[in-house]
Amino acid sequence: MSSEIYLDNSATTKPYDEVIQYMYDVSKNFYGNPSSLHTKGIEAEKLIKHARAQLAAELKADTKEILFTSGGTESNNLAVSGYLKANPRAGNHIITSKIEHPSVMEVFKQLAKDGYRVDYIPVDSYGVIELDALKEVIDSETALLSFMHTNNETGSIQPIEEISKLRNTVCPSAVLHADAVQAFGKMRIFPASYGIDLMSISSHKIHGPKGVGAIYIKKGVKVRPVLLGGGQETSLRSGTENVPGICGFGLAAEKIFAGIDENYVYVSSLKEHFVRKIKEYFSEAVINSPEQALPYIINVSFSNLKSEVLLHHLEQKNIFVSTGSACSSHKSNHSYVLKAMGVSTKYIDSAIRFSLSPSNSISDIDETIRALEEIIPVISIKHGGKK
Amino acid sequence: MSSEIYLDNSATTKPYDEVIQYMYDVSKNFYGNPSSLHTKGIEAEKLIKHARAQLAAELKADTKEILFTSGGTESNNLAVSGYLKANPRAGNHIITSKIEHPSVMEVFKQLAKDGYRVDYIPVDSYGVIELDALKEVIDSETALLSFMHTNNETGSIQPIEEISKLRNTVCPSAVLHADAVQAFGKMRIFPASYGIDLMSISSHKIHGPKGVGAIYIKKGVKVRPVLLGGGQETSLRSGTENVPGICGFGLAAEKIFAGIDENYVYVSSLKEHFVRKIKEYFSEAVINSPEQALPYIINVSFSNLKSEVLLHHLEQKNIFVSTGSACSSHKSNHSYVLKAMGVSTKYIDSAIRFSLSPSNSISDIDETIRALEEIIPVISIKHGGKK
Repeated sequence: MSSEIYLDNSATTKPYDEVIQYMYDVSKNFYGNPSSLHTKGIEAEKLIKHARAQLAAELKADTKEILFTSGGTESNNLAVSGYLKANPRAGNHIITSKIEHPSVMEVFKQLAKDGYRVDYIPVDSYGVIELDALKEVIDSETALLSFMHTNNETGSIQPIEEISKLRNTVCPSAVLHADAVQAFGKMRIFPASYGIDLMSISSHKIHGPKGVGAIYIKKGVKVRPVLLGGGQETSLRSGTENVPGICGFGLAAEKIFAGIDENYVYVSSLKEHFVRKIKEYFSEAVINSPEQALPYIINVSFSNLKSEVLLHHLEQKNIFVSTGSACSSHKSNHSYVLKAMGVSTKYIDSAIRFSLSPSNSISDIDETIRALEEIIPVISIKHGGKK
Repeated sequence: MSSEIYLDNSATTKPYDEVIQYMYDVSKNFYGNPSSLHTKGIEAEKLIKHARAQLAAELKADTKEILFTSGGTESNNLAVSGYLKANPRAGNHIITSKIEHPSVMEVFKQLAKDGYRVDYIPVDSYGVIELDALKEVIDSETALLSFMHTNNETGSIQPIEEISKLRNTVCPSAVLHADAVQAFGKMRIFPASYGIDLMSISSHKIHGPKGVGAIYIKKGVKVRPVLLGGGQETSLRSGTENVPGICGFGLAAEKIFAGIDENYVYVSSLKEHFVRKIKEYFSEAVINSPEQALPYIINVSFSNLKSEVLLHHLEQKNIFVSTGSACSSHKSNHSYVLKAMGVSTKYIDSAIRFSLSPSNSISDIDETIRALEEIIPVISIKHGGKK
C-alpha cells in the first residue's frame, strides 16, 4: 500500500484501473476513425454509441441529447456562448452567480464586453445564491441563466430546481445551464426533471480520463458549435472523436453511478469524522463548506497561516490538497468564491480545500489530522512576529 | 500476423504500442492536475513540458510557441478565428484555397457571413494553388492567409514558401497559417524558416492518440482563445490538460521523426510500386494524386464504378480504404477537392484514397492489387447496363 494520501479529488481523480485498461485495449484494437465508412470506422462508432448510452442512462436523457467534448471547460463554453450565438433574438440579458468556475465566468465577462447585460447574483454565507436577488433581476429579456450545481471550492449546492421554477414563472423562454462538473457522479441529477436545458459534465472528475467531457443539450434547444469542421457529433462538435477517451468516460460513469448511494453515505461519514476532528483539535479553524454542502469537498480556514505554506508542508508528508480551485492557480490565489461568501481576508488566505473520493479511508483522515497537528504550530504566524 | 491491410492512414493511424503503453503508465502513475500546486501537479506539468519540448525540437521552434489543443480541428479554428478576433484591425480580407479541410473551410464560411471579404484561390489539375490568382487578390487589406501544407485527399503540396514570399512583398502584415495536419511527421517543416506564423498539427495522424493536437504560434503573433476559463496554456487554451494524451503525442512525434527520412524513401517506393501496378492492371484508372505529391496518399479513380461500392468490397477482404476525406463522410460524398482540380464527375464518383504508413508492406500493395483485380470487373457499371 502506498502511503500517499490524495485529498485533491476536486482538482482531478485517479482513473479507475479498469478504465485505464479499457482505454489501452480500445487504443490497440479499435483505432479506426469513427467517420470512416469501413468496418474499422463502424466499430469505433459503435464504441462511442455505447459510451453515449452509458451517460444518457445515468442522466435519464435521450442519447441524442448527449454530446462529447474535450472537457468541462469546452462544455461550459459551448453551453453559454453556443446557445447565445444560436439564439441572437433570445434576449440581451444573461444571469450567473459570483462563484462560478472560470470557464463560465470568463465567458460571461467576454459577453459583457460584447454588449450583453449581465447580472452576477450574490451568494449568502453558505455559498448559496440569493433567490431574492435573482427574482429582482430576472425579466422578460433574460436569455440564459447559468449556475453551477455544486461549487468546486466549497461544495455548496445551488437550488437549481427553485431557479428553474422561477425561470418558468418570469421568463419561460430563458434557458437554464447547470455546470455539474463537480456534482456529476456524486449526486443523481436528471436534467429533464430538474428543468435544466444545458448541463456540463467532465470525465476526469469521476475517475475517468482527462481530455473528455460532455454536454447535455435538451431536445429542441439550439446551440451553435464552438468548433467548426467535419461535422462530427451531429455537426455540433467537429473534430475526430477521442474514441478511447470517450470509452473511458462511459465506463467511469457506469462504475461511479453503480456505487453512487453507498459512496455518498461513506464519503459523508468521512466528512463528518474530519470536521469533528478539526473542531476538536483546531479551535481557531473555520469550516467554510456549509453542512448541507456536497460532502466530497471540505474547505477549512486555519486562520493564522498562509494556505500555500500549509499545502507544501502537507505534501512533504505525502498528503495532497489544494488552496482552492486548481483552475485558478494560474491566476490569483485569492478565492473570489470565499470572498463572495463574506469570508474575511485572514480566513481566505488560510483556506485549504480537502476533496475526497470513495477510495479515501478513515485512516487517511486521521493521518491528515496528525499531520496538521504537527505542521500548524510550526507555520502559524505569531501575533507581532515576523511573517 | 493479422491479415488486415490498413490503407486509411490519412483518416487515422494505429497508435504505436510504446505510445499506448506510455499513456497507460502516465494515466496510472501521474494522474495529478498540472494546475495543482503540489508534487502531483508539478510531476504532471513536467511531463507536459517534456512533450512540448519534443514537439518544439521537431519544428525548430521555441517551446513557448507550442500550444496543446484537443486536435487538428481546434488548432485550425484557433489559428483562423483566434487570430482575427485578437487582431480586429489587421484588415478585412482573408484568403484560403478551394481545397481546404472542413475545419478551415467552415470557419471561412462563417467569417464571410460575419462580414469578412474572402477569396478562395483555385487550384490547378495537380491540386496546387494558382499563385497568379493569389497575386491578383492579395492586397494591403489582407489580414490572414490559410493554406493546407498537404492536401488530405490527394497529398498535393502547396508552395508555402512562395506564398510566404508573396505575402512579404505585397502585405507583410498578413499572417500565414498552414494546416500541416497531413504533412507533420512525414516531411520536415520548420515554420520559422518557411515564413509560417501559425501551424496546426494533430497527434492521431502520426500514430499518436486521438483527442490531442497542437498549434505553433510564432512569437509575437496574438491569438484570442476559442476556449475561455482557467487560463491553462498561457491563457490561450483553458481546460485541464489531457496529460496522458499530450505525453503520447510527444512520444509519437519523437518516434516518427526519428525515422522520417527512411520512412519517406520507403513509402515513396510503396507508392511507386502501387502506381505502376495500377497502371499495369487497370488501364482505365486515373491517378488523381500528382507525382510530386506526398507519397503517403494515392488517390485513384477507377472510372466505371461507385467508390463506396469498391470500398465495401475491399473491406470484405480486410482492406481498409477511404472514398475521400473521413471528415467529409458526414456530408456529401462528392469531393470538392477533386472537383476543384477539374476532375470530371465520373472520376470523382469512382475515386478511392489509399493512404499509407511505414508499417505497410509491398505485399499489402500486391494483395490490394489482387483484390482490385477480382472486385473491379464485378462491380463495374457496364455501358448501357443497370446502375
